[in-house]
Amino acid sequence: MPETIHVKTRSRTEMVDMTSLVQNEVSKSGISDGVCMVYVPHTTAAVTINEGADPSVCQDILTKLTEMVPPDAGYRHMEGNSDSHIKASLVGNSVSVLVENGRLVLGTWQKIFFCEFDGPRSRKAYVKVY
Amino acid sequence: MPETIHVKTRSRTEMVDMTSLVQNEVSKSGISDGVCMVYVPHTTAAVTINEGADPSVCQDILTKLTEMVPPDAGYRHMEGNSDSHIKASLVGNSVSVLVENGRLVLGTWQKIFFCEFDGPRSRKAYVKVY
Amino acid sequence: MPETIHVKTRSRTEMVDMTSLVQNEVSKSGISDGVCMVYVPHTTAAVTINEGADPSVCQDILTKLTEMVPPDAGYRHMEGNSDSHIKASLVGNSVSVLVENGRLVLGTWQKIFFCEFDGPRSRKAYVKVY
Repeated sequence: MPETIHVKTRSRTEMVDMTSLVQNEVSKSGISDGVCMVYVPHTTAAVTINEGADPSVCQDILTKLTEMVPPDAGYRHMEGNSDSHIKASLVGNSVSVLVENGRLVLGTWQKIFFCEFDGPRSRKAYVKVY
Repeated sequence: MPETIHVKTRSRTEMVDMTSLVQNEVSKSGISDGVCMVYVPHTTAAVTINEGADPSVCQDILTKLTEMVPPDAGYRHMEGNSDSHIKASLVGNSVSVLVENGRLVLGTWQKIFFCEFDGPRSRKAYVKVY
Repeated sequence: MPETIHVKTRSRTEMVDMTSLVQNEVSKSGISDGVCMVYVPHTTAAVTINEGADPSVCQDILTKLTEMVPPDAGYRHMEGNSDSHIKASLVGNSVSVLVENGRLVLGTWQKIFFCEFDGPRSRKAYVKVY
């Protein structure tokens, strides 16, 4: 199995900053220059890069996504989490970041967020540096 | 040209499971460990990873996308498929998946779907394993 | 720092075709076959691949995104650009394109667009070919 980050989410929708956990995997890989891919193997969760300085940004993202894709809207899928699947495809299940001198090359305000859309659950993300 | 998967779609919007076709290309590549990129060279189609067990999930995704981006909404582009272009940018035109021991490392419920937003058409996707 | 493309945007939302600038970086890299990644290090901008022949397509994409995520909608983030952050996560901050014989392998109608959601500003995008 690939290197794995474990994330425990605490509510139905939540964005969890996993930047330092991803950086740890980059450091452990010993790779100085390359690309780091973060991959979420779930279908009701996602990963995105956005602002980490003000937590209101993540709240606004989650609120707007739920306005756009409400939980109950006459879906066919009977498990009650169609909204979570739809959000997952809108946000996407992987991101890639450049690595230089053993560090993720993120913009000033960028953090890597695990996006929970059907929690709370025990989740994971794979990290590959190459 | 890169390795190419051919997909024939049968309606205006449709999600076609191409996981086994992608796995075939991974196997043919002879690469045991790496990354597999699937790239859609169209501007009114996309590719996403989501649940494949219950076909209702794909139906719900397509229905909600069409609610969010209806076909007729006073667009400027005169070809009648602006909604298809918009959906393409929301979902994205490539995905990457890890490869280990010659197999795609997908989550339990994950399948790779070609997303048709302006069909029916003969479409293609490129696959690169590295 | 990685190879950097500089983009000057002129309005709050705008899509700027940077295909030829990306192709320049591919040519400079001297790499004949591989993958080109374009990465936007901002949290209120994005990058997407879509149709470049008719500029109406980009206008329709921007107009619809603003309908879906209006600038003023009771957001918590007080900087007045929550809509820009939300759009950034919907569209995504990187794309990858195959390279063969030193050329980007784009579909007939595909162009690579820098997406400004909180301009006008001086922006940048990183390009890595591997």
